Amino acid sequence: MKGTVGLFDSGLGGLITARYLHQLRPDLSLLYYGDTAHLPYGDKSPAQIRAYTREIVSFLVEKGAEAIVIACNTASAVAHEVAVEAAQGLPVFDAIQPALARLLNSTPATIGIIGTYTTITSGVYRDPLREAGYLVQERPTPLLVPMIEEGWLDHPATHATIETYLSALGEIDTLLLACTHYPLIEPAIRRYYQTTGKPVQILSTARLLAEAVATTLPRAEDLSPPSLQIWVSDPNPRFQALAERFWGTALPIMPASTSPTALAKSPAP
Amino acid sequence: MKGTVGLFDSGLGGLITARYLHQLRPDLSLLYYGDTAHLPYGDKSPAQIRAYTREIVSFLVEKGAEAIVIACNTASAVAHEVAVEAAQGLPVFDAIQPALARLLNSTPATIGIIGTYTTITSGVYRDPLREAGYLVQERPTPLLVPMIEEGWLDHPATHATIETYLSALGEIDTLLLACTHYPLIEPAIRRYYQTTGKPVQILSTARLLAEAVATTLPRAEDLSPPSLQIWVSDPNPRFQALAERFWGTALPIMPASTSPTALAKSPAP
Repeated sequence: MKGTVGLFDSGLGGLITARYLHQLRPDLSLLYYGDTAHLPYGDKSPAQIRAYTREIVSFLVEKGAEAIVIACNTASAVAHEVAVEAAQGLPVFDAIQPALARLLNSTPATIGIIGTYTTITSGVYRDPLREAGYLVQERPTPLLVPMIEEGWLDHPATHATIETYLSALGEIDTLLLACTHYPLIEPAIRRYYQTTGKPVQILSTARLLAEAVATTLPRAEDLSPPSLQIWVSDPNPRFQALAERFWGTALPIMPASTSPTALAKSPAP
Repeated sequence: MKGTVGLFDSGLGGLITARYLHQLRPDLSLLYYGDTAHLPYGDKSPAQIRAYTREIVSFLVEKGAEAIVIACNTASAVAHEVAVEAAQGLPVFDAIQPALARLLNSTPATIGIIGTYTTITSGVYRDPLREAGYLVQERPTPLLVPMIEEGWLDHPATHATIETYLSALGEIDTLLLACTHYPLIEPAIRRYYQTTGKPVQILSTARLLAEAVATTLPRAEDLSPPSLQIWVSDPNPRFQALAERFWGTALPIMPASTSPTALAKSPAP
């Protein structure tokens, strides 16, 4: 394996997973596709999301990906099989399996799950956990993504929103953040649970996914320096600021219409 | 004129305009198209929004619309000309002209404008008003739509968000709500200005648009009872609840699968 991994998400939130992966495995080169023309996936139908996924995975394979990472919870929930088909035998990681594996190997009393409407109503986390005998409380939390994208990580509105959303879950001892973006407000979530006085373990699908990819893929054999390339399907100046928020430093973003020969490799982050 | 008006929006927020229009002109039959497969338009590029607009207007014309109402501020900002082309000589109303006409015929000292990123950065309100000598303060307020769609019209998070957004405008004497959804939080906005102690006139593009259509179109000649038909490009159970929130009563919603298939944009990168 040369060490090239293709990740995608409906937008740029998957860069948080990419960032975790880069921290854990700086030897890997990352190809990232943000389907900004169709975000947010959380409001789209499963059929629509499957159609987008098929095209994006084919694009990443064509660009040289040797493994595919579905960094989007919503797409993971409804389009894993389509991604496997389009990946032509390459390994496919989704955001759900690592989180389920972790939870099913632990002994929480009651698990809380928050995510988009599509992720929550799909039952991808809830159903296997309940079948295994766990108590599950869940809630769609659609305001958290736009708040994070607004940069309001410690704003009174964010704290009020978190309080309404999390108090509705009742008593839990483990909370699963089932959306790429949510790690950025983990401090605000921790603060809420400090006010309740009940310790809650917080897990994020983004970090568990990055850990699964990092521990599964072999060491890169390519001797050229690792790189990060980012494409978006609908270029928009605002995405530049968002990408920097999610990745932590400035990043060049290419429109997906760019021809392969015109692609300039970005410096390693 | 038989009295059939075609309205569209990126989602279902335009039903607020439709509702105002129905209150003012109960003789009209309304055709409504919610492009839920591509919402929110506020994050999309102008070229993308123009492509959607062309298809939707053609669909409404085919369904018998005798006038077209662009109930979406974002589409009004970037796709009026495309709508006129696709409307084949039918009158086209957009959300911008009625609001500009009203403001340019009044004497506000300082006008505040709030709306989506695309609407605000397009300058469609700001530029003509500044050219006419008005002082304008504006700000994109992207969290308000998801809060309204969550039904949080009087929630602490909504009040905290409104305070941050509106205080950033500084001192104004007129506020233009340049987004379909915003009339639903007009009471919360009024409450904010009561706390500041400074009276502010609040105008909404949705209401001004409905008034312009209502006063322009001739009396319907059709003797059959007026009706309301709603299509969405991506059916989703959640839209049912949203439609009822925006229209005020239960509503049947049809999938637009009978519509031009080109409406679902190919995801090919």
